[in-house]
Amino acid sequence: MSRTIDINSDMGEGFGAYRMGDDAAMLSIVTSANVACGFHGGDPLVMHETVTTAKANGVDVGAHPGFFDLWGFGRRRIVGERPADLEKTVVYQLGALQAMAQVAGHRVSHVKPHGAMSNMACIDADMADAIARAVRAVDRRLILMAMPNTELERAGEKAGLPVAREIFADRAYDDDANLVSRALPGAILHDAEESAQRVIDFIADGALRSVSGKRIPVAIDTVSVHSDTAGAVAMAQLLRRRLDEAGIAVRPLSQFIV
Amino acid sequence: MSRTIDINSDMGEGFGAYRMGDDAAMLSIVTSANVACGFHGGDPLVMHETVTTAKANGVDVGAHPGFFDLWGFGRRRIVGERPADLEKTVVYQLGALQAMAQVAGHRVSHVKPHGAMSNMACIDADMADAIARAVRAVDRRLILMAMPNTELERAGEKAGLPVAREIFADRAYDDDANLVSRALPGAILHDAEESAQRVIDFIADGALRSVSGKRIPVAIDTVSVHSDTAGAVAMAQLLRRRLDEAGIAVRPLSQFIV
Amino acid sequence: MSRTIDINSDMGEGFGAYRMGDDAAMLSIVTSANVACGFHGGDPLVMHETVTTAKANGVDVGAHPGFFDLWGFGRRRIVGERPADLEKTVVYQLGALQAMAQVAGHRVSHVKPHGAMSNMACIDADMADAIARAVRAVDRRLILMAMPNTELERAGEKAGLPVAREIFADRAYDDDANLVSRALPGAILHDAEESAQRVIDFIADGALRSVSGKRIPVAIDTVSVHSDTAGAVAMAQLLRRRLDEAGIAVRPLSQFIV
Amino acid sequence: MSRTIDINSDMGEGFGAYRMGDDAAMLSIVTSANVACGFHGGDPLVMHETVTTAKANGVDVGAHPGFFDLWGFGRRRIVGERPADLEKTVVYQLGALQAMAQVAGHRVSHVKPHGAMSNMACIDADMADAIARAVRAVDRRLILMAMPNTELERAGEKAGLPVAREIFADRAYDDDANLVSRALPGAILHDAEESAQRVIDFIADGALRSVSGKRIPVAIDTVSVHSDTAGAVAMAQLLRRRLDEAGIAVRPLSQFIV
Repeated sequence: MSRTIDINSDMGEGFGAYRMGDDAAMLSIVTSANVACGFHGGDPLVMHETVTTAKANGVDVGAHPGFFDLWGFGRRRIVGERPADLEKTVVYQLGALQAMAQVAGHRVSHVKPHGAMSNMACIDADMADAIARAVRAVDRRLILMAMPNTELERAGEKAGLPVAREIFADRAYDDDANLVSRALPGAILHDAEESAQRVIDFIADGALRSVSGKRIPVAIDTVSVHSDTAGAVAMAQLLRRRLDEAGIAVRPLSQFIV
Repeated sequence: MSRTIDINSDMGEGFGAYRMGDDAAMLSIVTSANVACGFHGGDPLVMHETVTTAKANGVDVGAHPGFFDLWGFGRRRIVGERPADLEKTVVYQLGALQAMAQVAGHRVSHVKPHGAMSNMACIDADMADAIARAVRAVDRRLILMAMPNTELERAGEKAGLPVAREIFADRAYDDDANLVSRALPGAILHDAEESAQRVIDFIADGALRSVSGKRIPVAIDTVSVHSDTAGAVAMAQLLRRRLDEAGIAVRPLSQFIV
Repeated sequence: MSRTIDINSDMGEGFGAYRMGDDAAMLSIVTSANVACGFHGGDPLVMHETVTTAKANGVDVGAHPGFFDLWGFGRRRIVGERPADLEKTVVYQLGALQAMAQVAGHRVSHVKPHGAMSNMACIDADMADAIARAVRAVDRRLILMAMPNTELERAGEKAGLPVAREIFADRAYDDDANLVSRALPGAILHDAEESAQRVIDFIADGALRSVSGKRIPVAIDTVSVHSDTAGAVAMAQLLRRRLDEAGIAVRPLSQFIV
Repeated sequence: MSRTIDINSDMGEGFGAYRMGDDAAMLSIVTSANVACGFHGGDPLVMHETVTTAKANGVDVGAHPGFFDLWGFGRRRIVGERPADLEKTVVYQLGALQAMAQVAGHRVSHVKPHGAMSNMACIDADMADAIARAVRAVDRRLILMAMPNTELERAGEKAGLPVAREIFADRAYDDDANLVSRALPGAILHDAEESAQRVIDFIADGALRSVSGKRIPVAIDTVSVHSDTAGAVAMAQLLRRRLDEAGIAVRPLSQFIV
């Protein structure tokens, strides 16, 4: 097998005295870092440290914009925000990260919405379009990371952005390629070996396999791994090793998308 | 007389449902808008509206970075922050405004620190250098607005940035060209005509005149007017009219500074 | 006619350097002030000023708890928050205001949820119960202000709290006693005389009249007037005058509820 | 020896998704918890969990008010705030915690300022008096925790508050009973046994011993231990065990201070 794949993870989600996840360890494993931009987490110091360390590790950085909701860590669904307003909050966060990256000698290469903003944009065409418009207005070469078969993927394509399709290493899929709700049994794969093997199978097959066994052909460009859960580092390390052993090249998105 | 001068004012300092000053009126008078970047005031929506209206009025926009202190509106002196950290907070704010400006078809042309950050940087060489480094790292063509004879002016020159010297239309000066403390009598000029005439005299003479009568030669590139005090709009309008009548060309900084 | 009624309005919604509405003027007209508690607006200084001025004017103060969302001014619908968590945010805000009131020689006598928290609790029984539980846990003598025929009213009764039914001076009602959406024509009464007369008619009749003309019998204890819209002060003054002329006693809630 | 002593530690300093320190472990060791009140850290959910667990462990809770500066975690020195304003921010935080404690069946028994607010109040009489006034205005039975020989101790006594004198288990003292700056060598005791023995010696002797060897007689009511540093739990456990072995009764402050 000779497929190429990116591994991405959320980074730089601390704020002030608070830390979230072991970024230094994760940055030695992944190839793309989705960097919080100060709205749901992150601040200028954390961002600087993250982009600097990413640069030193040859890791791509992307903006990980979230709702302006630090207390909720961007996970609370905020309903009724106008798409035009959402667009501006994404532009702001993108610009902030671009300057932080530039100063560190790096550059922003992708965008991946965070938390509730992402969940909502996957099924809300207006929100998805607003995000894609924001990205395109700032830099049309930015890669939009999106789950296959979502409004976000569609919006990125419509906007003419390069789109990277992502799968989640440890999440079960339903027959529509949607994530099975965390509230349901079997939604999360807890076994690292099983999870790694499943990723390899998906890549080899060019398709997801749902919990019911349905085969869903999808392009897969990047695998998302957690950074802030117990055992996250070990799980990511094992995935990386198994991918290497399987002959799947692990490379930053910017080296093979577009 | 044929001198050219810029008039600048602080803008876009609202936040969410809150508004501060009559930005629309001021943007029909001034030639440079110092736009709050979300740390002491401002948010993506206010910033977008401000840069869009500035663009429509032919008004330059600049970043107006402040301390990360919304409650204190950036006016509280925060002591002990490391210059390297301050630098990053300025980079972040600059980048955010750059993207907001770009999306509105405008561009950021200058930087003017806000409130306590400005007051402290005027007399603290390390802080001044940190701000100048941040500006240069983001874009070395950005004009740094600074009061004459301050550490901030010196730091801008040292960093090789274009520097615009500013005077305050309604503030008294001491013999060192520093602003007389607001706590002292006579620190503020309340009469609009007197204030306008003083500005014209300063420009004509190429020098400030202190409260004691001392003449202090300084370059004057821009005049700062308030936007959020009672009568601010009327005072700015009168100044603009008197400058026009005196044959002093009022132009955005970017049209005559390097 | 000899009915007694309270007039309530939202107050103390500034934050730091920001102000919202003319509180001083409103506090000379209304009999109950719903004081923002720092989550959607308000801060310790504004709260202190508000309770102190309310005390001097013989005006009741109540807590006006909102979502923890300063940027959205508590108007954004935040979905998925657990009722048990909502309960704690209400307790916190209530406690903060109680201490502020006590220090000013005043006391908190009622609670009225703000913005999206209120809108959601009117139709969501779990949220309404959470709010009522929070109020009762802090002080079971606190009056809960609620619109008639809402889940919030029901929750207050179920919790054994004194409940004050409120109507809105300038909002149209549908046949279920719900407010007509602001998005629909005729939702807002802009004429102050018409609005005042309608309030007097409702009180005299002991019933609302919907836009379709349906008569809906309801208890009416308090009339809510805006504090932050154009003409708010004049509208409130006229209402107060017309109520006085109609022989309807205008008194703080604490003087006639329970 | 039959002295009685309290062990206090800072708790509940998380915010939203962020956690700080192992509160559950510390609450099984200490006898007083200084609970963050939402300004430098803490939120209603963390506060509720902290006071509930403290109650279950027989641990006193106190308010740990800080500057309104989440990003700086209350550690940034904010200069120029008016004492009357500081007073109100302390009242607010105290009231919020009182309600949270009451709802959990507990009660607030002491107050200990946090971080920069504490450091500044130790040497600034106006700030210290403002804090003491705030505490007294809310409840004059609240115990003010203060380092001996500071303005804060003096202010508490002047205000007629019960004052508990505290020492730090792991900090070196100079000849004026002030903490040696962390910037200097030897400022921190890293050895848990040495630190515990020193505390016992101080209590037995009724005096501190400075780095130069000077004996400084002081009342000692409580020992402060860290909660958020590496090894904090182990260090606190050892101290508790050594105190027990030395026959020094470890009790919550409220059981032996007035």
